[in-house]
Amino acid sequence: MEFRLIDRIRERTAQGRDDVRLGIGDDAALLAVPEGQELAVAIDTMVEGVHFLRDTAPADLGWKALAVNLSDLAAMGATPAWALLALTMPRGGDAQARQRFVDEFAEGFARLAQPHRLALVGGDTTSGPLAVSVAVHGFVPPGKALRRAGAKPGDVVMVTGTLGDAAAGLHLLQHGGADGMLADYLVERLQRPTPRVAAGLALRERASACLDVSDGLVADLGHICTASGVGAEIESALLPRSSALLGLFDDGSARDFALGGGDDYELCFTVPAARAAEVQADLARLGCGAARIGRIVEGEGVRVRGEDGAWLEPARQGWDHFAA
Amino acid sequence: MEFRLIDRIRERTAQGRDDVRLGIGDDAALLAVPEGQELAVAIDTMVEGVHFLRDTAPADLGWKALAVNLSDLAAMGATPAWALLALTMPRGGDAQARQRFVDEFAEGFARLAQPHRLALVGGDTTSGPLAVSVAVHGFVPPGKALRRAGAKPGDVVMVTGTLGDAAAGLHLLQHGGADGMLADYLVERLQRPTPRVAAGLALRERASACLDVSDGLVADLGHICTASGVGAEIESALLPRSSALLGLFDDGSARDFALGGGDDYELCFTVPAARAAEVQADLARLGCGAARIGRIVEGEGVRVRGEDGAWLEPARQGWDHFAA
Repeated sequence: MEFRLIDRIRERTAQGRDDVRLGIGDDAALLAVPEGQELAVAIDTMVEGVHFLRDTAPADLGWKALAVNLSDLAAMGATPAWALLALTMPRGGDAQARQRFVDEFAEGFARLAQPHRLALVGGDTTSGPLAVSVAVHGFVPPGKALRRAGAKPGDVVMVTGTLGDAAAGLHLLQHGGADGMLADYLVERLQRPTPRVAAGLALRERASACLDVSDGLVADLGHICTASGVGAEIESALLPRSSALLGLFDDGSARDFALGGGDDYELCFTVPAARAAEVQADLARLGCGAARIGRIVEGEGVRVRGEDGAWLEPARQGWDHFAA
Repeated sequence: MEFRLIDRIRERTAQGRDDVRLGIGDDAALLAVPEGQELAVAIDTMVEGVHFLRDTAPADLGWKALAVNLSDLAAMGATPAWALLALTMPRGGDAQARQRFVDEFAEGFARLAQPHRLALVGGDTTSGPLAVSVAVHGFVPPGKALRRAGAKPGDVVMVTGTLGDAAAGLHLLQHGGADGMLADYLVERLQRPTPRVAAGLALRERASACLDVSDGLVADLGHICTASGVGAEIESALLPRSSALLGLFDDGSARDFALGGGDDYELCFTVPAARAAEVQADLARLGCGAARIGRIVEGEGVRVRGEDGAWLEPARQGWDHFAA
């Protein structure tokens, strides 16, 4: 049965790529990395009840399992190429229900894979508690990858898109109120995040440091600070927030979601001040936009200034698996 | 906390490899594939209660999670290079117990990684039901990989090592009798399988088809037959069985374990009859040995002849996740 499930996924995710010499169906895939390119690789796991709610639509799960990985490639400035999928799902229920689940999962996965010409080259389906691991592979010219280390005092801190939407969408799903167009928008931002692949490519040779916002802005910007040996100051008045977020939540909640909420998969990056305007204009042309939200300073850690000019203690600093 | 767990694994699995341009710690690893080599990639998941027993020692789990993946590379004739690890473990229990688990897991993983100079380049630890996904990457010259397709009528069917040990070890753990040196040997074969990497490399340009025995000989040889468009005939009298297996089980059980038991991670391969003796001599020099167990024929499917010369219906045809 395992082979039939993988076959169904393969059919729905077919991609013609010359660099896939042998795809799904043998003990391993055979792949050719283009000359003069390095390989960027990442792996991420999503577990039911931890990373996604029970009863998440299979298509949303397929999309998101790939999205969070493409977001890692985006954060490195890499061009997506191939993915491996390990899908673990309960054995209970009838075979037809499992096939339907797999078909819908594959459809959501393929929907995001297609515009990126990403090929699924290997897969493993096993029985067990619902969980998905995806490993992605992308290309980047040697020495051109974006990293967390490299931010310098005086650099401007920027983020793509808007922050806090996904956390707000999760809040609505968990506490009710997920009706109407604004709510739909926030829930969609949670379930179908857009990996900022084009933005990541545009930032190569321009951003001094970059990562994607998966755990929350303050926590993730903290990783840039640690890796770069610097501190950061954020102006909460400058945090980009969607009109859906501001329409459904008061200012304080919207700010907390934007500072601490995870799962937005926007890029947070630093650029020398002299290039900030140019970068901002380019990302605006790409459609996602980029907002200046603060600056890099000497020292360590992330400080956030409230609208009244006083430093604030963020109510939520992002979540951390395994945290007590 | 996630970073600290991954750091502990990184410390214990350090490998100096020039082709790892950036290892664990950023959004993705950066890797350089040597010129003139293709990349072989595979992913495998192990779930507690499905692929391994509850209370399996963490070090055994670390070893085996890597071993089953290295076995996929071996089956392709690829040289191991890098791995990604996604470890999901319950949040319950104290932090010290989790650290100890991770340390022991990493030690088992490193114990197998080291002789293969395999570097762990990326990792993700999440909370949830205990499960491990590993993705491996290896190198193989273009066109030289071993595949499942390619077996031809008249080819000899061979296997490395001995068959049925792992299934017998599992039987002992589940049904009692796992005491004494013979039992220890069989349980060790289950918990710490040896991926036949050197044998896979030696088979390049010589085997016409190859895979690793993970689901059971009959089931796996069936995959070679399907992919190659041929049939196979096995002589059960020729199945290589360890003295531990024959010492603890009667002939019928030993044969069933050898035919249907999974988890041995030996290589099953086919070679033109004229080269069988040479291949056998070479694998004997590598220490694992190889036995001739049958031949490829026109037709389809795998048939097994008993010691009395009559075709037999195997009692066990290997297991299949998701099978009813």
